[in-house]
Amino acid sequence: MFDDASLSSLRLLGSGPAVEVIDQTLLPHQFTWQTLDSTPAFCHAISAMQVRGAPLIGVTAAFGLAHALAQDASDEQLNAAHDGLLATRPTAVNLRWALEQIVAVVQPLPPQDRAAAALAHAIALREADIAHCARIGEFGLALLEPLQRKGRLNIMTHCNAGWLATIQWGTALAPIYKAHEAGIDVHVWASETRPRNQGMNLTAWELHRAGVPCTVVADNSCGQLMQAGEVDCVIVGSDRTASNGDVCNKVGTYLKGLAARANEVPFYVALPESTIDWRCPNGAAIPIEERGSDELLTQSGVDGSGTLRRVRLAGEELTAGNIAFDITPAQLVSGLITEHGVFAASSEGLATLANKLGR
Amino acid sequence: MFDDASLSSLRLLGSGPAVEVIDQTLLPHQFTWQTLDSTPAFCHAISAMQVRGAPLIGVTAAFGLAHALAQDASDEQLNAAHDGLLATRPTAVNLRWALEQIVAVVQPLPPQDRAAAALAHAIALREADIAHCARIGEFGLALLEPLQRKGRLNIMTHCNAGWLATIQWGTALAPIYKAHEAGIDVHVWASETRPRNQGMNLTAWELHRAGVPCTVVADNSCGQLMQAGEVDCVIVGSDRTASNGDVCNKVGTYLKGLAARANEVPFYVALPESTIDWRCPNGAAIPIEERGSDELLTQSGVDGSGTLRRVRLAGEELTAGNIAFDITPAQLVSGLITEHGVFAASSEGLATLANKLGR
Repeated sequence: MFDDASLSSLRLLGSGPAVEVIDQTLLPHQFTWQTLDSTPAFCHAISAMQVRGAPLIGVTAAFGLAHALAQDASDEQLNAAHDGLLATRPTAVNLRWALEQIVAVVQPLPPQDRAAAALAHAIALREADIAHCARIGEFGLALLEPLQRKGRLNIMTHCNAGWLATIQWGTALAPIYKAHEAGIDVHVWASETRPRNQGMNLTAWELHRAGVPCTVVADNSCGQLMQAGEVDCVIVGSDRTASNGDVCNKVGTYLKGLAARANEVPFYVALPESTIDWRCPNGAAIPIEERGSDELLTQSGVDGSGTLRRVRLAGEELTAGNIAFDITPAQLVSGLITEHGVFAASSEGLATLANKLGR
Repeated sequence: MFDDASLSSLRLLGSGPAVEVIDQTLLPHQFTWQTLDSTPAFCHAISAMQVRGAPLIGVTAAFGLAHALAQDASDEQLNAAHDGLLATRPTAVNLRWALEQIVAVVQPLPPQDRAAAALAHAIALREADIAHCARIGEFGLALLEPLQRKGRLNIMTHCNAGWLATIQWGTALAPIYKAHEAGIDVHVWASETRPRNQGMNLTAWELHRAGVPCTVVADNSCGQLMQAGEVDCVIVGSDRTASNGDVCNKVGTYLKGLAARANEVPFYVALPESTIDWRCPNGAAIPIEERGSDELLTQSGVDGSGTLRRVRLAGEELTAGNIAFDITPAQLVSGLITEHGVFAASSEGLATLANKLGR
């Protein structure tokens, strides 16, 4: 499915460290490659959510740091670029993780060797992300196979944790792509994901492009669908998972976790190891980003003549709140699907994974 | 607060039975009175949601039937107009209730007396709705007063169950208006209520107009706000409540009920007796309306030049589902606030109410 190199959210421009990314703020209306070839361009791409999704944010930041070191490999530049990139978004821990990976590689080196080493490691992180997501897909597929009943297998997801959120495959969508490839009659309920509509704009776009049947629904209807027996499994991604298994993900995930538990629907979180914040004791310690109210109060779309327009939905006198993430308590999570296997969402489950990794 | 006669969602045109209603599909961008002076106009106003909210639908239908009888008071016309109005929307039981009220009054009468009797009864239903909502407000206020802690009292609501959904006061918003009048520092979290945005477009508009502080939030963020301790109480309305206390209301209500229970937040449903379907054993027996997918896939708003435009949010290839209501199981409901007092959401609680009413 991902042999076609165009199905990748980030690609090298020439031999790097400049890269091209899909400007995801323009999807599904425009498919545009955006060049990132300066530190401000890398920072803006992350903060303005031209790239989003915890794994993709991490890889993008790694190339951003490699790019900065190609201009100036001094300690000052290393620190400044690291700090500038780290400040772009607070919640996704992969950002910090990827930057720390690059710093660990280059800091011991003399400045003249740093740029090449950083670029090589950024490329390695990109390749590793593809491999990890493919493995998440295989482990997830093994969980989905026993859930097949007669008729189609209905999987609900939230936000976008597909190849647009990673490099290829995705996290939550990887098992779905693998199931589709394996000939399972899989259908996806894509929750719209207000206020930025990543479910409608990105997940439905991805799945349609891949030929996976998908129905977009309002976030509000997800409980009703579970009550009605229309959901066999929920799979979501994560922006940061604490060492006790509490899952931080796009706001609205928690409500799906509650509804899944109430209706005995399995609720899985798919994530690479790099999304686990081993230093973080629980969900309450995760910083939650609050974004501008315009994301809620305005919307982009095409009018009758095909022109892309931004309209204001409500009166200008309105006050709006826009919390971007929420915490799903570990006890609502049926399991964490990682590239190393499926683990219980608990301190014990993650200790097992840590042991396996020799941490 | 409602001495100002303009704060009413439906008013007589002259001496009736024609009426004027606020075209709620145009709020908050345009405040327009729409004349209803034919059976098709009454039916369209309900089915197209120019009027909505279970109590207002009921009163509008009563005037619609009175209007039809003023043209032709035969049994055939009575049956045809009754059936046409009843078919406009399936879920709100007040529609059936109000039509049955008028039929019960006029059926025993000779045709020449029917029009005047129907009009008089429709006017009486309108007046009764105002009185019932005011009483719901008083009973609800008594529940809110003990919830005051230091600082403001934060109440979450869903969709619109304010005076726009009734004639005056509202159901869920009546206790909030009463609290505001009583000098309580009350603040409302208005859940956007996708796909039609009644929370953003109607509830926030109503509350702002009345000077009640209000913050619009994405439906997705309601669980996070309860986790964070930012919600002291949830109050919603209902379109139909079964005789076991299961509550049918705008889709998304169930998710708030789950989050309220998980976070020990009181969750009240405010409704007039006419919203109780005594013949309905439980929520599973309530017909749930499915509406067109364009409600989800397109949005109206004003562009930079102030022009009202409808834009398509997503690709035309998308499939969307649009279930309009869900069922909140009785056990998630802290109490039913009615014009007769507060009752447990259970078969026993509603039997107590039925006894009190001599049913």
